[in-house]
Amino acid sequence: MLSKEEIVEYFKSLQDDICRQLEGADGTGKFEEDLWERPGGGGGRTRILQGTHIEKGGVNFSAVHGTLPEKISKALNVSEGNFLATGVSIVQHPKSPMVPIIHMNVRYFELSDGSWWFGGGIDLTPHYIVGEDASYFHKQLKSVCDKHHENYYPEFKQWADDYFFLKHRKETRGVGGIFFDRLSAKNGFSKEERFAFVKDVGELFAPIYTHLIGKNKDLPYGEKEIDWQRLRRGRYVEFNLVWDKGTKFGLDTDGRTESILMSLPPLAAWEYSHLPEEGSKEANTLSKLRKGIDWINHKE
Amino acid sequence: MLSKEEIVEYFKSLQDDICRQLEGADGTGKFEEDLWERPGGGGGRTRILQGTHIEKGGVNFSAVHGTLPEKISKALNVSEGNFLATGVSIVQHPKSPMVPIIHMNVRYFELSDGSWWFGGGIDLTPHYIVGEDASYFHKQLKSVCDKHHENYYPEFKQWADDYFFLKHRKETRGVGGIFFDRLSAKNGFSKEERFAFVKDVGELFAPIYTHLIGKNKDLPYGEKEIDWQRLRRGRYVEFNLVWDKGTKFGLDTDGRTESILMSLPPLAAWEYSHLPEEGSKEANTLSKLRKGIDWINHKE
Repeated sequence: MLSKEEIVEYFKSLQDDICRQLEGADGTGKFEEDLWERPGGGGGRTRILQGTHIEKGGVNFSAVHGTLPEKISKALNVSEGNFLATGVSIVQHPKSPMVPIIHMNVRYFELSDGSWWFGGGIDLTPHYIVGEDASYFHKQLKSVCDKHHENYYPEFKQWADDYFFLKHRKETRGVGGIFFDRLSAKNGFSKEERFAFVKDVGELFAPIYTHLIGKNKDLPYGEKEIDWQRLRRGRYVEFNLVWDKGTKFGLDTDGRTESILMSLPPLAAWEYSHLPEEGSKEANTLSKLRKGIDWINHKE
Repeated sequence: MLSKEEIVEYFKSLQDDICRQLEGADGTGKFEEDLWERPGGGGGRTRILQGTHIEKGGVNFSAVHGTLPEKISKALNVSEGNFLATGVSIVQHPKSPMVPIIHMNVRYFELSDGSWWFGGGIDLTPHYIVGEDASYFHKQLKSVCDKHHENYYPEFKQWADDYFFLKHRKETRGVGGIFFDRLSAKNGFSKEERFAFVKDVGELFAPIYTHLIGKNKDLPYGEKEIDWQRLRRGRYVEFNLVWDKGTKFGLDTDGRTESILMSLPPLAAWEYSHLPEEGSKEANTLSKLRKGIDWINHKE
């Protein structure tokens, strides 16, 4: 039977592995690490890289445990008791506006009453949507999902469309990806099977992002693209601070602020009622920030 | 008896008057106006200035009415029915880091069951806290409050300390100010008396900010001060998107997004675990972002 120690150790090694691969993709940047402890039990390793191609990249591992705070048991609608929450959480803000922002999270939660589940997701936020990259990204996700269950990709792709959505802008955060939560023993899955899926998702992240950096990092750009990148980063801030459940929850329950907010971009802009020129590539990107697009077969 | 039309007209004229004075203080910038309508009833006038000393300044007037949405009646803990909400809301982001950010809001709410109240506040967010300016600011507020009731300043000053607080940072947003809500006929006040106070608060805004711009706009600064300004603006974004009830509520109830988010700065930065040098003026400012400081008698 899969033990919690095994899952915690796996997430640690996943963090190590991803950091190594991201350093390789960046070329010069090295991760700096902060070890931290949670007063109520457990702690984490927050790692930040500021490099050549990755302007600000965070890879956080945490494993916290103790008595479940009442706020959390209410929000999760579970019984009180002892809990363990562990996972790896990543956001990368590239220097070039031609390289997309990416986010990945894999996590495991268990309660002393014996209940447990996995959750996570990957989503891509291009400053400029490139059909070929969006298609590549979704194909990779589908291929990993399909290995585990034929319903995974369609269900989790729709879940991501619904989750990574800025309701107040009526915009998706980017081209979506997959999102899943409360993957438990329901529907006949074993814990080992759920874990195998989560591992595959975690291990998919570095190859995908390394590919997208390599393909786009040398594309030319100027002031116009940087201005647009800053506005899109502003939207990223809006999503994370207004709608992202993990962020809100962490800030509301005395989580480690700097680890939670490592997802925020180095520099972001807001311009009142900004509207890109009709027919521009910025307007084209905006027009595609919609739910329900079949990115795998999408034509430019 | 004070009519709602009178209050609405007053807030319109207050917006006009403040915009005129801010244009004067800026010297070159002119407000641009967007008129907008709310599908459920009413609308507003959003005005934005991008000038020489004010980098991004918003002055919004709105008067919305109709059937009270259920989300709002629940949040306000009032009965359903028809409502009117009207007010003026202001945030000014100055170009110079030596000039403080300022916010002011005055508002009136009434329900078809006959209940009504006023709310509002002014608070100051210096990038660098200057004791003399904080003392001047609070003296002005106290003097206006004292004209109406001796309890107003101490009560509303503490309310501002508690309201303009970033719980996840354990920092106040700035040097506070005054905040008040649900000022009704309770405690023997007449509607005319409450309105007279709110008018005095509204009319205090322009002279205060004109003074603070004039005093500080020509002070020298460099890259270091601009970097710090951007980090402090990041905190302003955090407060508005995570904690400000008006912002959250507006975004959650399909308010006009661009009018709500006009409060966000033109450019903001986040740096992982930024800590100013010990003994620096940045560290001095950070150390004073606390509740309960008696700014009127504060010594540097």
